[in-house]
Amino acid sequence: MGLLTRIRGPRDLDRLSSEQLAALADEIRDFLVEEVSRTGGHLGPNLGVVELTIALHRVFRSPRDKILFDTGHQSYVHKILTGRQDFACFKDKGGLSGYPSRAESEHDVIENSHASTVLGYADGLAKANQLRGRTDHKVVAVIGDGALTGGMAWEAMNNIAAAKDRPLVMVVNDNGRSYQPTIGGLANHLATLRTTQGYEKFLSWGKQVLGRTPALGQPIYEALHGAKKGLKDFIAPQGLFEDLGLKYIGPIDGHDQGALESALQAASTFGGPVIVHVITEKGRGYEPARRDEADQFHQVGVIHPDTGLPVEQAKARSWTSVFGDAMVELGDERQDIVAITAAMMLPLGLKKFAERFPERIFDVGIAEQHAAVSAAGLASGGLHPVFAVYATFLNRAFDQVLMDVALHKCGVTFALDRAGVTGTDGASHNGMWDMSILQVVPGLRLAAPRDAEQVRLQLREAVEVEDAPTVVRYSKGTVGPAVPAVGTVNGMDVLRRSAGTGEGLARADVLVVSIGALAPMCLELAERLDEQGISSTVIDPRWVKPVNEGLPGLAAEHRLVVTVEDNGRVGGVGSTIAQALRDADVDVPLRDFGIPQRFLQHAKRATVLEEIGLTAPEVARSVTALIAKMDAHADTSVERAEVPAEG
Amino acid sequence: MGLLTRIRGPRDLDRLSSEQLAALADEIRDFLVEEVSRTGGHLGPNLGVVELTIALHRVFRSPRDKILFDTGHQSYVHKILTGRQDFACFKDKGGLSGYPSRAESEHDVIENSHASTVLGYADGLAKANQLRGRTDHKVVAVIGDGALTGGMAWEAMNNIAAAKDRPLVMVVNDNGRSYQPTIGGLANHLATLRTTQGYEKFLSWGKQVLGRTPALGQPIYEALHGAKKGLKDFIAPQGLFEDLGLKYIGPIDGHDQGALESALQAASTFGGPVIVHVITEKGRGYEPARRDEADQFHQVGVIHPDTGLPVEQAKARSWTSVFGDAMVELGDERQDIVAITAAMMLPLGLKKFAERFPERIFDVGIAEQHAAVSAAGLASGGLHPVFAVYATFLNRAFDQVLMDVALHKCGVTFALDRAGVTGTDGASHNGMWDMSILQVVPGLRLAAPRDAEQVRLQLREAVEVEDAPTVVRYSKGTVGPAVPAVGTVNGMDVLRRSAGTGEGLARADVLVVSIGALAPMCLELAERLDEQGISSTVIDPRWVKPVNEGLPGLAAEHRLVVTVEDNGRVGGVGSTIAQALRDADVDVPLRDFGIPQRFLQHAKRATVLEEIGLTAPEVARSVTALIAKMDAHADTSVERAEVPAEG
Repeated sequence: MGLLTRIRGPRDLDRLSSEQLAALADEIRDFLVEEVSRTGGHLGPNLGVVELTIALHRVFRSPRDKILFDTGHQSYVHKILTGRQDFACFKDKGGLSGYPSRAESEHDVIENSHASTVLGYADGLAKANQLRGRTDHKVVAVIGDGALTGGMAWEAMNNIAAAKDRPLVMVVNDNGRSYQPTIGGLANHLATLRTTQGYEKFLSWGKQVLGRTPALGQPIYEALHGAKKGLKDFIAPQGLFEDLGLKYIGPIDGHDQGALESALQAASTFGGPVIVHVITEKGRGYEPARRDEADQFHQVGVIHPDTGLPVEQAKARSWTSVFGDAMVELGDERQDIVAITAAMMLPLGLKKFAERFPERIFDVGIAEQHAAVSAAGLASGGLHPVFAVYATFLNRAFDQVLMDVALHKCGVTFALDRAGVTGTDGASHNGMWDMSILQVVPGLRLAAPRDAEQVRLQLREAVEVEDAPTVVRYSKGTVGPAVPAVGTVNGMDVLRRSAGTGEGLARADVLVVSIGALAPMCLELAERLDEQGISSTVIDPRWVKPVNEGLPGLAAEHRLVVTVEDNGRVGGVGSTIAQALRDADVDVPLRDFGIPQRFLQHAKRATVLEEIGLTAPEVARSVTALIAKMDAHADTSVERAEVPAEG
Repeated sequence: MGLLTRIRGPRDLDRLSSEQLAALADEIRDFLVEEVSRTGGHLGPNLGVVELTIALHRVFRSPRDKILFDTGHQSYVHKILTGRQDFACFKDKGGLSGYPSRAESEHDVIENSHASTVLGYADGLAKANQLRGRTDHKVVAVIGDGALTGGMAWEAMNNIAAAKDRPLVMVVNDNGRSYQPTIGGLANHLATLRTTQGYEKFLSWGKQVLGRTPALGQPIYEALHGAKKGLKDFIAPQGLFEDLGLKYIGPIDGHDQGALESALQAASTFGGPVIVHVITEKGRGYEPARRDEADQFHQVGVIHPDTGLPVEQAKARSWTSVFGDAMVELGDERQDIVAITAAMMLPLGLKKFAERFPERIFDVGIAEQHAAVSAAGLASGGLHPVFAVYATFLNRAFDQVLMDVALHKCGVTFALDRAGVTGTDGASHNGMWDMSILQVVPGLRLAAPRDAEQVRLQLREAVEVEDAPTVVRYSKGTVGPAVPAVGTVNGMDVLRRSAGTGEGLARADVLVVSIGALAPMCLELAERLDEQGISSTVIDPRWVKPVNEGLPGLAAEHRLVVTVEDNGRVGGVGSTIAQALRDADVDVPLRDFGIPQRFLQHAKRATVLEEIGLTAPEVARSVTALIAKMDAHADTSVERAEVPAEG
């Protein structure tokens, strides 16, 4: 453990010998296993890109040259090599982000954790460099083979290929997997490339060249640069990429430091777009990851570094597993239920369904657009598809939900996992957009189950709708305790009434509309309000779109309506309920609580909720202050809004 | 004109001879020129697919077999052949839609006019057929070469290619163009295929086969079916499609009826996915279209059928041309301004900019995602990109606007043309979503200019923002008269005050918040309210996101706030203003007028606005009734909302 601590920036790599580089790679792997097993994170992918990242930083000059990582979860090594070796509070408040972060380092360029974007960014950067005459600024984009299945990557490649004179290095980090093995025609093609003779030939040729290279301190690429003949040989167009007009280098052994640097150096001096196809092994050098056939430790929780086993077995059930079990139950009952996943079968709890109904699950790759539009096709063909996806990733398919599913009145169910504040994965993983943007989709019905039983029930209700999209959205992590209804009003569950209020009794002051997983928080809120002498009714409308027709009438029986949702405030459920009240001429004041409309920094979920004030004490404080103000005003006024309610 | 009237459905095509088919094609072209020159529409694309559509309906058995058209604007011939020859009210209320429509015919399957979706639908349908064992149900998807540049098409093809045993016919209608010549590496590849020897060889082979075919009533494909050797020869994998594992037939002369039917028949009996590459000529058989180098009459207004010249020259300026001129002006002033278009340079008014700054405009193909993400890259590289796009098509890039542009604080300007009700192109062309879904994007600033001068000014203001996305959205068609401000309040333009109201004078009853192009309507509304004795202030906030900080205070000085926007009501500007009022504890009643949240049927814009009640008389009626109700209530109450405003 002597080399790593001396690497304070990329240029410290320049003077290392081959032997030192190999030792450094070992140190980095030890560091990754030790640190990530303690905090959790994307272990497998980063173990696979150690040599590649070292090579990138030796060949390119960051930050002048821009090194871009797609999705960004494979940037840990890059962080380590660019002065960030303090993983103490990794992914938690004040600690390093789990993705590149421009606030952390000038070496980070894009910080998006939605996949397949890097080639598009790179195309823009390369165009800017060309227009501004900055010929010495290189752009290199690293993208996994899994992310190439995304349409954005294709759109970018089609554009990049068209400009033969605009330099851009695309490194395809091919480990044959996204979470799981990459699917589709492209994957088959990559597999073919991987096993061509050219690979073997190149490897032996590379070794030969490197054998002639003076060691220690002498850049390996100089030897290569001299070998013009060799260069010409291996910048040879190939297959699919050739058809698009792209130069192709590879395949390269992603764990052969010399071969990697030779290839990248050749690519960096090529005057146009070029693909460098690098074969890496996910989980490289860590036996527990290599043994893991499911996803090779793509992302882990806290584990024992030696065994790779979880430190604590999950004690409670997750929302995901509740969904997964419900799907199997429905699949047994109805032959027409099929499941769709965009390369995330395991994280979405679909393993059991896949094992039981292997013909009835479709993994479309990282391709949310295709997931949604092919679901419309499946529905037109008489089946009922359930597309399970992280809430934040559904944004990729907004147009398809609207135009391909809703306009066509297709019965497609979207199961949105990781909805609301997710926390440690940062801004782009929070599922805080879905309940806003989906409000505009005509005919769409959206359910936000509050507990495990409601997930089961509402999923069942959702798949019964055959002429419109339905959405069931639920949180990340452990599902909370059951929250039973104490009554119903017009199909809405009443979760709590303050003592002495309700039908035939006194009117309560506040109507609390509880959305989804925040039900326990709303119950606590009601208790706190009771303590302040403010009575309340807590309801869960269950289906939050469309707004329940009984809601305006119920609202009119209260002095104040409070909505609480684990979703962005703008255009969310609260806003839509407010509109429904206006449309019914019910001008009872309403206050909507939710996530403020800004990008949230990474931190644990509880920390984030605290920071944004989405807690029972904080909401109780606001409501109490508001009621006090209304009381003070009521002394000189009357207790009604200006426009009287209809009916 | 004898054959066409006898075609009442696809099966009427079966008994026609080669000579009759040729005559029918001529009749259809005459029909198209005559009808579409009278109503306007997509003339060029439909003239190109006459033989292809006839062949599709002779080889496949619709509606059992599903014939799907991408984008749908090339489905006129399909309509004519499936019992729809009454083009009298084409695209207008009660008339035929300009796209496939499931309400019109059992032969229509998808009615989306957003491009690149068809392969995804087809994949879903093919999967459903396979799962349900419906082996005699064929699926055939027709997609233009232009639409293949869209990421959805790639995602679909990657999935389709993976299932070797699932039949699906993909017809690539290759006319080398979308609106303009198709761009990118794929286009180059298609061009190569077009000119390969294989094409010539196939044509001569085809003629040879057809020469042996008994004419009249004898299906041409039977001869082909017997020619096993030939079949094997031309179902030969080729190039890019081969690399994905797709069978490839072609290229086929898209105006050779026999060759088309032979190829489609071969494809229809193949047991897996197959590409049929058909070369067609946009505007075929109509000299004015063929001569039009710009876009070969992709879409025309009302024209003289003989000359192709517009019947009326546009008298007034369009919103589009105002934008186009403003871009040239900005381009002259600032070297860092670059333009992006997704295959629609002409319809978006960027021709002048492209001529003046050819290096500074990027046509990315039908690829809105790439347009947005590469814009983020361009901005990171120190330029200021303006991506001009139809408002409805920006939905395709929602995730990119949010994650790639806004999260990265990139200075990118989105110019949204055809915002609001567009009318005749129907549900999927109305730009009624943008001002809702963009509300959730942190940091994004959105302007809705009310007249030509404001387009110029606000575009200028937009490109000055360098750390956030900016949006300028404007309508389709003729820009209205200038609407001057009579004053300003906190940066908001005051457009009108009722006599005797305003600063130092009496408070007005109603605050009318006018959004964008509806300013003239809001002025008329104010006049009508005056006539009812209801005074008002009409303001245009200009920038509608974020909500102007002075708005709550101004609202508190009125009895009622009315917002009027040419956008979906749910989550729109009115909703967001209502939220801003709640956040400021201003509980003045608000009523938001806009487009009801449903898919609008095609009709002229004025007709649609009438139907949805978005007119001055209708809004005046609602407001008058509401004020009357408030007055009646005020007699027994006080004139304040329950929660008093802060400050």
